[in-house]
Amino acid sequence: MSSSQISVAVLGATGSVGQRFISLLDQHPWFKVVALAASDRSIGQPYAQACRWVLNDPMPEYARDMVVVPATPDSIHAKIVFSALPADLAKDLEPQFAQAGFAVCSNASSYRRADDVPLLLPEVNADHIQLVKRQRQQRGWSGCITTNPNCTSTGLTVALKALDDSFGVRKVFAVSMQALSGAGYPGVPSLDIHDNVIPNIGGEEDKVEWEPRKMLGKLDGNKVELADIGFSAHTNRVAVTDGHTVCVSVELSRPADPEAAARAMRDYHAPASARELPSTPRPVIEVRGEADRPQPRLDRLTGKGMTTVVGRIRRDPLLTLKFVVLSHNTIRGAAGGSIYNAELLVKENLL
Amino acid sequence: MSSSQISVAVLGATGSVGQRFISLLDQHPWFKVVALAASDRSIGQPYAQACRWVLNDPMPEYARDMVVVPATPDSIHAKIVFSALPADLAKDLEPQFAQAGFAVCSNASSYRRADDVPLLLPEVNADHIQLVKRQRQQRGWSGCITTNPNCTSTGLTVALKALDDSFGVRKVFAVSMQALSGAGYPGVPSLDIHDNVIPNIGGEEDKVEWEPRKMLGKLDGNKVELADIGFSAHTNRVAVTDGHTVCVSVELSRPADPEAAARAMRDYHAPASARELPSTPRPVIEVRGEADRPQPRLDRLTGKGMTTVVGRIRRDPLLTLKFVVLSHNTIRGAAGGSIYNAELLVKENLL
Amino acid sequence: MSSSQISVAVLGATGSVGQRFISLLDQHPWFKVVALAASDRSIGQPYAQACRWVLNDPMPEYARDMVVVPATPDSIHAKIVFSALPADLAKDLEPQFAQAGFAVCSNASSYRRADDVPLLLPEVNADHIQLVKRQRQQRGWSGCITTNPNCTSTGLTVALKALDDSFGVRKVFAVSMQALSGAGYPGVPSLDIHDNVIPNIGGEEDKVEWEPRKMLGKLDGNKVELADIGFSAHTNRVAVTDGHTVCVSVELSRPADPEAAARAMRDYHAPASARELPSTPRPVIEVRGEADRPQPRLDRLTGKGMTTVVGRIRRDPLLTLKFVVLSHNTIRGAAGGSIYNAELLVKENLL
Amino acid sequence: MSSSQISVAVLGATGSVGQRFISLLDQHPWFKVVALAASDRSIGQPYAQACRWVLNDPMPEYARDMVVVPATPDSIHAKIVFSALPADLAKDLEPQFAQAGFAVCSNASSYRRADDVPLLLPEVNADHIQLVKRQRQQRGWSGCITTNPNCTSTGLTVALKALDDSFGVRKVFAVSMQALSGAGYPGVPSLDIHDNVIPNIGGEEDKVEWEPRKMLGKLDGNKVELADIGFSAHTNRVAVTDGHTVCVSVELSRPADPEAAARAMRDYHAPASARELPSTPRPVIEVRGEADRPQPRLDRLTGKGMTTVVGRIRRDPLLTLKFVVLSHNTIRGAAGGSIYNAELLVKENLL
Repeated sequence: MSSSQISVAVLGATGSVGQRFISLLDQHPWFKVVALAASDRSIGQPYAQACRWVLNDPMPEYARDMVVVPATPDSIHAKIVFSALPADLAKDLEPQFAQAGFAVCSNASSYRRADDVPLLLPEVNADHIQLVKRQRQQRGWSGCITTNPNCTSTGLTVALKALDDSFGVRKVFAVSMQALSGAGYPGVPSLDIHDNVIPNIGGEEDKVEWEPRKMLGKLDGNKVELADIGFSAHTNRVAVTDGHTVCVSVELSRPADPEAAARAMRDYHAPASARELPSTPRPVIEVRGEADRPQPRLDRLTGKGMTTVVGRIRRDPLLTLKFVVLSHNTIRGAAGGSIYNAELLVKENLL
Repeated sequence: MSSSQISVAVLGATGSVGQRFISLLDQHPWFKVVALAASDRSIGQPYAQACRWVLNDPMPEYARDMVVVPATPDSIHAKIVFSALPADLAKDLEPQFAQAGFAVCSNASSYRRADDVPLLLPEVNADHIQLVKRQRQQRGWSGCITTNPNCTSTGLTVALKALDDSFGVRKVFAVSMQALSGAGYPGVPSLDIHDNVIPNIGGEEDKVEWEPRKMLGKLDGNKVELADIGFSAHTNRVAVTDGHTVCVSVELSRPADPEAAARAMRDYHAPASARELPSTPRPVIEVRGEADRPQPRLDRLTGKGMTTVVGRIRRDPLLTLKFVVLSHNTIRGAAGGSIYNAELLVKENLL
Repeated sequence: MSSSQISVAVLGATGSVGQRFISLLDQHPWFKVVALAASDRSIGQPYAQACRWVLNDPMPEYARDMVVVPATPDSIHAKIVFSALPADLAKDLEPQFAQAGFAVCSNASSYRRADDVPLLLPEVNADHIQLVKRQRQQRGWSGCITTNPNCTSTGLTVALKALDDSFGVRKVFAVSMQALSGAGYPGVPSLDIHDNVIPNIGGEEDKVEWEPRKMLGKLDGNKVELADIGFSAHTNRVAVTDGHTVCVSVELSRPADPEAAARAMRDYHAPASARELPSTPRPVIEVRGEADRPQPRLDRLTGKGMTTVVGRIRRDPLLTLKFVVLSHNTIRGAAGGSIYNAELLVKENLL
Repeated sequence: MSSSQISVAVLGATGSVGQRFISLLDQHPWFKVVALAASDRSIGQPYAQACRWVLNDPMPEYARDMVVVPATPDSIHAKIVFSALPADLAKDLEPQFAQAGFAVCSNASSYRRADDVPLLLPEVNADHIQLVKRQRQQRGWSGCITTNPNCTSTGLTVALKALDDSFGVRKVFAVSMQALSGAGYPGVPSLDIHDNVIPNIGGEEDKVEWEPRKMLGKLDGNKVELADIGFSAHTNRVAVTDGHTVCVSVELSRPADPEAAARAMRDYHAPASARELPSTPRPVIEVRGEADRPQPRLDRLTGKGMTTVVGRIRRDPLLTLKFVVLSHNTIRGAAGGSIYNAELLVKENLL
């Protein structure tokens, strides 16, 4: 198979995550974008006209003149569809695509909790991808759905995985300071966030308290057993373009001083199957030693935005350790994550 | 005594907290500013010329033409000095003033931990002011030193006090998102904080983990017994002018649902001696019911910046409750706090 | 007449300018708010529930429980209505109110260019208010419509008036940097303006190039002759909450050095009829001597937000002088301006 | 000559422009960085330790372990030195390097106005580089000094050049909104610029009114005759990381409608000698047709930050045309400009 021939499409192409898909798929070594789908008011227009581009990087040339098509299986000829759809639309449309034979790599939350749908961070739980076999069998699909987690769950889970492997994780307090791009476009009105903090993001805390437990859970035969870890989360919006920062306190099962924890994170490697893919983060975790890092503006593009950056690992007076995690919310935490999942599907011959 | 005649001075008058003192003392019903003291390079200049004013509210007229004097007891004729000095200078200068008979109401951290110096939030521990008697006796001072806590400890402690009285507080996780004005002027470079979060504020976490224990402790004869509460703090800087936001998770000794906690906070009143002073917050705590409040830009001026604003009280999956606290860092958390302390000294005839 | 008895209503009460009306009318010495009107989805709800409050100052108590009514003459019993309606709605509704006997003091642009409608800055062209007599005669209204100019035209025109009186103004280059609140709520998406400048505000340049000519024009019998001044404007949006900054270069008819211009502005007084009203700016113009003022955060509240602040008056290499003007866009430039107009109507017995 | 062997050094390597040099020189096809020089307190430290990195892109690997050396000719073995020194240091040090045989490509303002020093934008006035011959002869130097203009002059001059060639430029009004990185690090305190505009940048207006006249002037034998164009500039600081936006009004000698001006800019090419260099902007000018572009966040990286972006070309009521120019201030307007100048030196065999 000449993998450079794999055709892909983006659903929800005009939104902020859709734009990130288009940007990251520019000159991807395996995938070629053949269709951009969006809502009714964009259909039939060249992408450059249909889309209000909000990324710092210019719109890739290849996308400018592509004519936007409807988000239906009939309108698209591709092996893989990347879904940046809102959850309510994703709920209906993604199964239609899976049934019609497409591999749906979704950033939407609609199927993350389904028993037979893998919730994937390839550097954490690449083996969970085997769930798609049960999914196909059970649902009679020739295609499939894979999902990536919520943008705040993402970096948090990667860091916890390294600790869990070495010391066992029991309890986690997590307080996020999340970027504007996580709310899409138009998203947060400027009068709401300028010179301000919004101490709530609807539905987010529930996701952050649940999703890591599935990803850190064991695949046992055909199902994932949720990890027995307690979570408490607070989620906040701050005036940052990209990059979610999370303050974390953890209780570990076995003693760990900050140096040992830093070593465990620095030494952490992706599972073998996820290690040499085009989007594999290099390194998976970067541990910074400065007193005031990670910071979103300075660290979000580490490893092309796929690396999880950790810093300020120190003792916690109540639990075991405290630290700070940073992850690029629309790269590692959204579009880049879905693409990494798709690469794993290819690698595992599950397309 | 005609209290409107009490003469006061401000030490460190040109800094951002010094400016807040000057602003809040404009038309104070009891106090009259008779001297503004600052560092060498300002001495002899009219205040309007010596100072780079950074507050939103214009500089009060009364201060413009006052000539800046040295921060020494000899240069100042006043009953009370408000200290907005940096900690290292405060350490040397404040005792000199106390010895010379001045009541020093200090925002500096230098003496907060001294056994015989009250660390005061009048609406929380007004009785601790009695420590100044021991202080005078022990140190042979005719004046005294009182202190107010760190700006992040402030709102946190007020909210915890209401819970502690009703349910007992055992453990506290606190993650702050602190305003720029807390770092003084010039303070944080814009390139460091624009489009960014700085996940560390030097020395701050240690203060937040210790100071509330003294204020929530019991005054037993001549000393304060630290409250037996465990604290874990993360402190962050965000791009907000004024107002510190703190995400808090607490473990309580007795069961409390969110409604009961809200009631306890709403019903909380300052101790009698601190209840009718010019700077008494009205209310002490405002509990908001919206899903996304408090917010610094919208809520920091509640009760003229002296009220502690609490919101999002909800169950915590690991401990008992989670909530968000907001407090104006240069009003309640700094200059306004010192002034409130001074009013309590007057009320208790301790001047 | 006991002026404290004048009943007023606010149309468009839930928007950002409507909120400013409500804030500024709190404890107004002459006016009492008796009705708040807004669009269909708010009608019947208490104001505190219908409105997403966006001002720094808390919502006034008096407004919280007022039930929102429809914006129709039948629903409102008041002498004056303040209109914060969008231009398209204002176009239809304001004449209905004027016909029904209300004095409409409008912030909308719909009737600013009508020959018989005064476009008013009382400190500039108080005499233009006489146009309402012709308006009533011509249109058969018992009420009337007065308007205040666009928020960027406002400060610019006040500054130009002082120069025009002393030296004659021939040509004006004006480049604005406008605040977020000028776009209303939700207004500008945060992703559009965070870490950014938007170099266009739809329709604004045309207003800035025309409106000052009407206000600086002479009232000749029943009509205003447009001032013979050439204008060129660029308008930009920047990440500032409140306060529009305008860089201005002017060509004057008679020689003027910066000192003479500063003197002309400092000495400028409102016309006699507009001089002692509750909203009269004190001073009309504040001229600052520092090299880097005015600045929106520091100067927007000068004179309670009604004063026009000017600085950096210096020679222009191509024309005569350059300077910078700052004006609070939702106080002097919107709600405060309409209220000042209403006060002038009262003073002139034109209600 | 194997151009990949040209050794270069960076003076002032730890500042914000120095950092940009280091970032842009990473994997440069011709130049190899062999030394990083900075002030006394950094000397002897590895660069990664000496420098507080402020760019969005991570510090290049090659620089991390380089030991910082003194900024003296004796300490450095290289053909070219890039100077990011402050003007006062540059004044003394740059001639020492030129005398010692180095080609100094400077971003400092110290020698921009010297008769025998080229002030260069290769896409505008590549021929001015010939001045270095006179410079060497006159000063007896084996090395030389070339300079690039002020960051705000840069984009403005590129746009004007295209218009001047086609229509002749007579008068220019320019009002800038400049990014934080232009002030270096620590630069602007956050309390000064957050939620604010600073309407002055010391010394900047004078540069913007003079420098374009030299670059647009004709090289006549051994000297440049200043272009006979009148300039008036206002310069402002806004809360933007990178990218200077300039509102421009121009009077042209020959009639030009917006379409013709757009065509002239789109068709503008660099002089032949400057056309195929590694840093040549592609395109030199990008003209955008949207109503609200260019914007700094979205357009500053056009052409890898070397392209000048122009938009909103429209008629000016007083002069001929108005438009908006955007240029990346630390790439095209600083480090990238100096590197482009160095490439031109190589190409012209003037090293």
